[in-house]
Amino acid sequence: MTEPVSLAAVGLGRWAHQLARQYTELDSIELATCFTRTPEKRDEFASKFDCDQDESFEAALARDDVDAVVITVPNDKHADVVEQAADAGKHVLVEKPISIDIEDAKRIEDAVERNDVTFLTGHSCRRVGGIRKMKELIESGDVGDVSHIEAEWANERGLEIGADNWRGNPNKAPGGPLIQLGVHQIDNLQYLLGPIKQVFTYGKPMYTEVENMTMTQTVLEFESGQQAYLGANWTSPGVFFINVYGTEGVMFYDLDFANWSNSEDTDKNSELLLREFEEWTEDPDERKLRDIDVEMPIKNHLRDEFAEFAQAIRSDDIDPEVDARAAMRNVAVVLAAQKSADENRPVEVDEILEGA
Amino acid sequence: MTEPVSLAAVGLGRWAHQLARQYTELDSIELATCFTRTPEKRDEFASKFDCDQDESFEAALARDDVDAVVITVPNDKHADVVEQAADAGKHVLVEKPISIDIEDAKRIEDAVERNDVTFLTGHSCRRVGGIRKMKELIESGDVGDVSHIEAEWANERGLEIGADNWRGNPNKAPGGPLIQLGVHQIDNLQYLLGPIKQVFTYGKPMYTEVENMTMTQTVLEFESGQQAYLGANWTSPGVFFINVYGTEGVMFYDLDFANWSNSEDTDKNSELLLREFEEWTEDPDERKLRDIDVEMPIKNHLRDEFAEFAQAIRSDDIDPEVDARAAMRNVAVVLAAQKSADENRPVEVDEILEGA
Repeated sequence: MTEPVSLAAVGLGRWAHQLARQYTELDSIELATCFTRTPEKRDEFASKFDCDQDESFEAALARDDVDAVVITVPNDKHADVVEQAADAGKHVLVEKPISIDIEDAKRIEDAVERNDVTFLTGHSCRRVGGIRKMKELIESGDVGDVSHIEAEWANERGLEIGADNWRGNPNKAPGGPLIQLGVHQIDNLQYLLGPIKQVFTYGKPMYTEVENMTMTQTVLEFESGQQAYLGANWTSPGVFFINVYGTEGVMFYDLDFANWSNSEDTDKNSELLLREFEEWTEDPDERKLRDIDVEMPIKNHLRDEFAEFAQAIRSDDIDPEVDARAAMRNVAVVLAAQKSADENRPVEVDEILEGA
Repeated sequence: MTEPVSLAAVGLGRWAHQLARQYTELDSIELATCFTRTPEKRDEFASKFDCDQDESFEAALARDDVDAVVITVPNDKHADVVEQAADAGKHVLVEKPISIDIEDAKRIEDAVERNDVTFLTGHSCRRVGGIRKMKELIESGDVGDVSHIEAEWANERGLEIGADNWRGNPNKAPGGPLIQLGVHQIDNLQYLLGPIKQVFTYGKPMYTEVENMTMTQTVLEFESGQQAYLGANWTSPGVFFINVYGTEGVMFYDLDFANWSNSEDTDKNSELLLREFEEWTEDPDERKLRDIDVEMPIKNHLRDEFAEFAQAIRSDDIDPEVDARAAMRNVAVVLAAQKSADENRPVEVDEILEGA
């Protein structure tokens, strides 16, 4: 049997706990150590997940029993931390978004290539059973030819964050809910229909005390000519859906947002409906529609992500989803959307990626 | 008891039959006569609905037993026909859209004012029970403050219309599905949140042999600063929904498109869900959501429209929905969307309405 991959967890906030709860269940992963600046947080994490702790990031990187680092530090610190880890020869899994600007994403891409380490960005959402199933039904042609998609991810975050929260700061969280929630849907959209070419966004702060956008609505064109709508919002109770329109069927995928963080429950609390004609008749008034409950594989999006990461480290044949370039493209779409909202004009994604 | 209002039906296509099936059930309306150019169609309609027929529009207008005219001629003929009817002192109900350009809508508005007749545009969709109920829940504050809306109306029309069909011609049906289906949702949006200020649209012909757009996706800003998405499409099986996002609740309204034309069944085949927090907790991970089935009044959108039309004719106190100005604003949004798609830029609705 292959040796398990030995991890250091860096950044020990709420999300680090959710991830650890999942990867510590895998035989292919072993949690060696953890690091964050605050000793109390290290103590809590180390005792909860039965691992060592290190007093500096450098000390964690210097350990021979650390193969890889899982990074959940603030988004604007990703590049520094990833670069340091990769330069120390460690494999890296970094939480989404890869960065909040293109320069940082490019630094990460370069560091990964330079050191030839395995790298994965935590766009786990594309791994849920429903999205895997939709991808399959699009590619098999079962829903005919796809024209457009509608996607929304909303929660109530903007109604309660204070003026000093980093999420309310356009420099720390460009696009607001677009960089925090929407970037998952952007990854899903590019996973389903390929690269996004151009976007137009309306967005603004609404019902909030922060200056960042909390309400955003975007329409976009793929390079293929297909289109999508993307809503990313912090102004209401939780909503997550993806509707895929094909010439022969429309798929409606819904996920109960309250079960997002507990990834073992996410797929059990989701639904995929397929609407199609009961039968095709000449008279349009006689055509009846039916909604079919589509069976989806039950996945665990966070655990699967770590399982693939470990496999990719141990095998040369596996390129894990989502690499630095794909993650950079997701961020570029967010930045294009922010620019579009600021300047009230459509923005090409290539305008953001220029030179990268 | 008040005398029933006596109608002439002008234009006797498929939709004229659907309307007549509804208004002939009302005590407040009497169908006197009908007219269209083709004698066979007149015979069929007159015998089916037990009314007279006239061999010319002028003859129908000359009748003393005709109080009002219901017009379902092609959209680009509305202005001529409405003007003639109003100048003959007849009240007018015209099918939506009021026109396909602003000049014609303005001619209609002027003719109605000049002759002081009762006028109504057939935007019956806002009369369905679910949309009435959503309006009530928005105004009562039950869903908190509304930030944005998502609306879609799709059917398969574009997949089967031939190159010679008027719907495939951008001059006859500007905006394609936007002028035919989307204009209903535009009316619903302006009914729910007031005047639309600016729009941006991606749209194109897709999976069709016609040159008109068959796929359109629009984002828009209301004058209030609230926002909406509107999908209007002819590229898939039927979909109709409206999602309204409030700070305390999200409403999901779905209508089975197959029951749209039979207006006595429309409301029975629709659903309104309200999503809200089961209880508000400090920890966001502990907040559970619940979806509540909201009871809606069961209406008959077409019959109700005619009942109100008759009432308004007999009473000075009733201004029927939707007047020429509101209907003109609906068309202006369609034309702004078409212009936006053509020119790849956001377009102000006032730019279209200028001078009207």
